[in-house]
Amino acid sequence: MYIGIDLGGTNIAAGLVTADGKIIAKDSVPTLPQRGWKYVVNDMADLTKRITADAGYEMSDVKAIGIGSPGTIDTDNGVVVFAANIGMEKTPVAAELGKYLGIPIHMENDANAAAYGEYKVCGHDIDNFVFITLGTGVGGGIIIDRKIYRGFNSAGGEIGHTTLISGGEECTCGRRGCYEAYASVTALRSQTARKAKETPDSALNEWIAKYGGVSGRTAFECAAMGDSAAKEVRDKYIEYVAEGIVNVVNIFQPELVAIGGGISKEGDVILGPLRRHVDKYDFNKFMPKTEIQIAKLFNDAGIIGAALAAKDSI
Amino acid sequence: MYIGIDLGGTNIAAGLVTADGKIIAKDSVPTLPQRGWKYVVNDMADLTKRITADAGYEMSDVKAIGIGSPGTIDTDNGVVVFAANIGMEKTPVAAELGKYLGIPIHMENDANAAAYGEYKVCGHDIDNFVFITLGTGVGGGIIIDRKIYRGFNSAGGEIGHTTLISGGEECTCGRRGCYEAYASVTALRSQTARKAKETPDSALNEWIAKYGGVSGRTAFECAAMGDSAAKEVRDKYIEYVAEGIVNVVNIFQPELVAIGGGISKEGDVILGPLRRHVDKYDFNKFMPKTEIQIAKLFNDAGIIGAALAAKDSI
Repeated sequence: MYIGIDLGGTNIAAGLVTADGKIIAKDSVPTLPQRGWKYVVNDMADLTKRITADAGYEMSDVKAIGIGSPGTIDTDNGVVVFAANIGMEKTPVAAELGKYLGIPIHMENDANAAAYGEYKVCGHDIDNFVFITLGTGVGGGIIIDRKIYRGFNSAGGEIGHTTLISGGEECTCGRRGCYEAYASVTALRSQTARKAKETPDSALNEWIAKYGGVSGRTAFECAAMGDSAAKEVRDKYIEYVAEGIVNVVNIFQPELVAIGGGISKEGDVILGPLRRHVDKYDFNKFMPKTEIQIAKLFNDAGIIGAALAAKDSI
Repeated sequence: MYIGIDLGGTNIAAGLVTADGKIIAKDSVPTLPQRGWKYVVNDMADLTKRITADAGYEMSDVKAIGIGSPGTIDTDNGVVVFAANIGMEKTPVAAELGKYLGIPIHMENDANAAAYGEYKVCGHDIDNFVFITLGTGVGGGIIIDRKIYRGFNSAGGEIGHTTLISGGEECTCGRRGCYEAYASVTALRSQTARKAKETPDSALNEWIAKYGGVSGRTAFECAAMGDSAAKEVRDKYIEYVAEGIVNVVNIFQPELVAIGGGISKEGDVILGPLRRHVDKYDFNKFMPKTEIQIAKLFNDAGIIGAALAAKDSI
């Protein structure tokens, strides 16, 4: 048995995970990072013990604990180097958690943990895999030769911060024109709101009035009902997403790219056009092609990936 | 001793290379691919024997032969899958060359071979390295965990075919807005010619009249003499190059990125602004930074890299 902890700005989610990546039990508590990091780690320890006990296991059944954390993570030393949303800087989370639990602890960046989870359950026996999450931002996780690729300083894998349109939309990272600034759900909401203003007669405005605001679903739902302005937004958004996937394919030519995050629940509505675009613009015309699929684990990817990364690190 | 062969559309260049990457002797013959591929391979064998004998070695001193070839290469089987400029398609080059020389033969894509050569002589003991050549196109070679990264189908590493400005300038690959369409020397020449037309009084036009056309040096030389239109072209070009390097850094966070190709001879004129741009826009603000340097081997990178890749493959 392994424990996977998905440390987020709002909640600490943890699960008891089997060696083949099944969650036996899970639970969460609020993070409340403003209390100070030692309280957060204390809660991680309590949560771990409670989930294990409630599921009928002893702590001695838990072989390792994995933590997926936002920010830049020093995996070798189990330190959160910097993570604004949980108020941590050079924070020795693994060492502190180790005081409560005498079990090997492994830390990963949360996007890498999720990528590893998706990789392990993707259903293919492959060496190279890229996971792209379309959420508030665009997260990336890269598996090369069956291992998480982090770069020499653990800061690699920032696929969301590569140019889609250099000099274009402002990005949270201080650059202009990043993939994230076009393909995140945040970007989709801006694109939808802009189009709604430009087209007062479109169903987008009815949707927004009815639900009290724009969401990542607005354009997709209005497009499904036949609204042409919404279709334009949706199709252009899918094209943005696809352009970034062509980039990933041209660089990595991995066996598989998986798309996760809220938008991935649209399933074939995005997967069909994505695959056609990538197939058309992929540089590789002569060798077998990269497969593209929707991720399988949704919110559990972080817990499962952290647990399995911990398992494979011991 | 190892033989490295750099197979190009115009010439076959080969060298006798020591285990630590020094060229003892080298020579070249025209490729003349229109003769048919078996004649080309025959010439590769003759060239190999001649260089070895002329340098005072026996063929039995040669432990392996490496070939860097344009196009998509099936490294496992020593086959050129497709390379338009040497007229090869599913061509079993290694097997054919093996008929003449009973020595292990290893094939690589030419950009990967050059990257491996630069990696081996870069002067740093590092795991991850990216090589970018700015030439007719933009070539890329990626070293991960001390090995050439090729992707599952040997078609990876096409850094030149990732978006700088999606939907922008036409690229040779059929897409619009690739890095290559902004950062290659071909692109620089177009940018220079365009600016010369827009600014009839600029020194660019004098240069072009004097030398009978635009080259990759035009903007750099006129800028060095103080011409403001030339400075605009040069600075914008360097910014394009830098934006692509930020992408590479954000994805790979390698210890080192090296820039090769003709333009890299400009040295500090491009390296200074490149480093400042990357330092400013790199996503990583908290961990050690990727080093950027000019490549060391220029035209010999392919020969040395092919030879050392062959050495390390046996």
